[in-house]
Amino acid sequence: MSRLRGRIDALAAVGATEAGGSCRLALTEEDRQGRDLVVSWMMDLGMDVSIDAIGNIVGVWRVGEGAPVMTGSHIDTVRTGGIYDGNYGVLAGLEVVEACQQAGVTPTRPLAVAVFTDEEGARFAPDMLGSLVYVGGLGLEDALDVRAIDGARLGDELNKIGYAGMTPCPGAVPHAFVELHIEQGPVLEARGMRLGAVTGVQGISWQEATIVGQSNHAGTTPMALRRDPVAAGAALASFLHELAHRYGGDQVCTVGKFDVHPNLVNVVAARVTMTLDVRNTDEVLLQRAEAEILDHLSTLEKSFGVSITLRPLARFEPVEFDDEVIALIEEICHDVTPLTMRMPSGAGHDAQMLARVCPTAMIFVPSHDGISHNPAEHTDDADLENGANVLLRAMLALANHDFEGRS
Amino acid sequence: MSRLRGRIDALAAVGATEAGGSCRLALTEEDRQGRDLVVSWMMDLGMDVSIDAIGNIVGVWRVGEGAPVMTGSHIDTVRTGGIYDGNYGVLAGLEVVEACQQAGVTPTRPLAVAVFTDEEGARFAPDMLGSLVYVGGLGLEDALDVRAIDGARLGDELNKIGYAGMTPCPGAVPHAFVELHIEQGPVLEARGMRLGAVTGVQGISWQEATIVGQSNHAGTTPMALRRDPVAAGAALASFLHELAHRYGGDQVCTVGKFDVHPNLVNVVAARVTMTLDVRNTDEVLLQRAEAEILDHLSTLEKSFGVSITLRPLARFEPVEFDDEVIALIEEICHDVTPLTMRMPSGAGHDAQMLARVCPTAMIFVPSHDGISHNPAEHTDDADLENGANVLLRAMLALANHDFEGRS
Repeated sequence: MSRLRGRIDALAAVGATEAGGSCRLALTEEDRQGRDLVVSWMMDLGMDVSIDAIGNIVGVWRVGEGAPVMTGSHIDTVRTGGIYDGNYGVLAGLEVVEACQQAGVTPTRPLAVAVFTDEEGARFAPDMLGSLVYVGGLGLEDALDVRAIDGARLGDELNKIGYAGMTPCPGAVPHAFVELHIEQGPVLEARGMRLGAVTGVQGISWQEATIVGQSNHAGTTPMALRRDPVAAGAALASFLHELAHRYGGDQVCTVGKFDVHPNLVNVVAARVTMTLDVRNTDEVLLQRAEAEILDHLSTLEKSFGVSITLRPLARFEPVEFDDEVIALIEEICHDVTPLTMRMPSGAGHDAQMLARVCPTAMIFVPSHDGISHNPAEHTDDADLENGANVLLRAMLALANHDFEGRS
Repeated sequence: MSRLRGRIDALAAVGATEAGGSCRLALTEEDRQGRDLVVSWMMDLGMDVSIDAIGNIVGVWRVGEGAPVMTGSHIDTVRTGGIYDGNYGVLAGLEVVEACQQAGVTPTRPLAVAVFTDEEGARFAPDMLGSLVYVGGLGLEDALDVRAIDGARLGDELNKIGYAGMTPCPGAVPHAFVELHIEQGPVLEARGMRLGAVTGVQGISWQEATIVGQSNHAGTTPMALRRDPVAAGAALASFLHELAHRYGGDQVCTVGKFDVHPNLVNVVAARVTMTLDVRNTDEVLLQRAEAEILDHLSTLEKSFGVSITLRPLARFEPVEFDDEVIALIEEICHDVTPLTMRMPSGAGHDAQMLARVCPTAMIFVPSHDGISHNPAEHTDDADLENGANVLLRAMLALANHDFEGRS
């Protein structure tokens, strides 16, 4: 553990923030220094390091035969990043390799550890960009032309930090992929669990509702003559809240943004713009929720005398991980601790891209208070160690696992 | 009518805005020019013009005997003012004097037309400042020390435009006061009415609710583990809406301002700050509404796991105008058109200050679409004429009216 903890702390020192977190936005000088450090550790472990054309780093410990079992994650952060998000998965991968080497364990296949470019999407949209290009979901040229929030071109920034590599994209298909990550949510902790076998990633529907009413004097306009978009928006937010509770299961709905115009105490507003974030692991339920919301708008329009338009902001179908990999991970987790559960991921991860090309699943460890993307992000050492142990055993098991008719 | 219309248009030209309205914020150069114009018209009519220490202008046509019957309003505007709000009442007052003079009608008491300083409160808070000082509700020195939104001291600005007068405050108590004003709301138009006998001014309760929850990831945080202040704020807004409809009558409730922090699509918010504007003509009902809202907060706190604090922003009790003056005005209105109704005022007016010291009521004419504080503010000429006729007859009748045991 002290070795993994040492690497986590050493990487955290690159771009360290006063609040105790890290800021290594993708393809900045801090990202370069973090990459250089990880590459040096890969070299120290005798791994073959390749950099591909979108800057993904893949270190391979060349043992055994056939396509490697790959793990990996990312080391870029959001501006107010913690020190575990992404980094933990990458560095636990190195720990797996080093532990095997020290124990004289030789896997039946090569083990690969990947560092994917721009997972956060905090500087370049979309998020999970590097892994998306790795699996051929986005063309290299399109990816290189992406503009940063600061206006810089991704390809130029990649060249500037020296990580525009020669290895072609899409990349080589692994035998299997497993990603270890902090949960970034409160579920494990709230249920008293220590390990999660992740079954997939929630589908996401983001829409923006614009509600147009009639601005009026809040004193002189009787209720019956109002067309109040705030009242209508409040009813819409309450409808989403009720829907999420009615669906139960993994359904979540969030109104995170609510803007009122003109936003004055004594004026019935003219317009509200609000966001609807709706997620479910089941695409059928996600579509049903979207349809219910759409249906409900006409009720609101009639009740409040407003007009409501929806604009799609983003839409991702749920990702289901590989049943065999999930089962294998769950069994190992149970062996480490009975405090293990199956769970979906509420956040996006590189694993969901790799799932397009090879058998894939993930391992979650608890996040204290569910906090992430924040310097207060924390996972206990005991949990970090549990996760790394599961990753080690899962990678070895996957190397021996025959995905019948698939690999 | 053409004379009143001519004066309205001439005053509107002072500080005219491109959109067709006027901008004469209190005690600015535009306000001075508007004042100078009105004072010149008073002089032309042979009225005695006095300026008091807070800048209120009172023109008196010295006929008859005893305390004058006073009318009046204001000529300051909000930044996006229309051309009728306030101005109409002042200029209709001059029209009353001129019409009497031309027709050889001599009232039994003097007629006074007042122009009160800073009614809008758009530059200096509170609103209705000049009439408040006139009736002794605010000390002169305190009023002169009020700071503008631009930092200027009221007393200094008053000196700068030459309207720091010699007449002491509080001012002389009139025999009666009647104010003619556009409705600034949609009620008369919506009910097909042409004249309103105004019974009083709604009481106002302004509060700010701050709802503190827990910021979380909108994907990784199950509904049961959330403390979502937006969901709680939406429920509070819906509660106010429902309360207003349940109370009926003159009850209105408005959430005009709703601010979310951090206000991001994929983040369960940390905090909401929202305003609660609650008005009723009945103080008992207003207090009941406030108590119900306060009671409901603990229910919301429990349901949503948030904490809610209320901060009072403003509180005014309802004002009831004088029964005899209301009845007298209503009778005259009915004589002009059967399309007459009694109604409360949803907005504040100088008349509510004068009501503290003498028998007072108001006359309303329709506002097209209920629009005010906007260049689109409009009242048809026929309605302006109706209102001026009622004002003339009401002032003559009040001059002859003996308020038994009061004056």
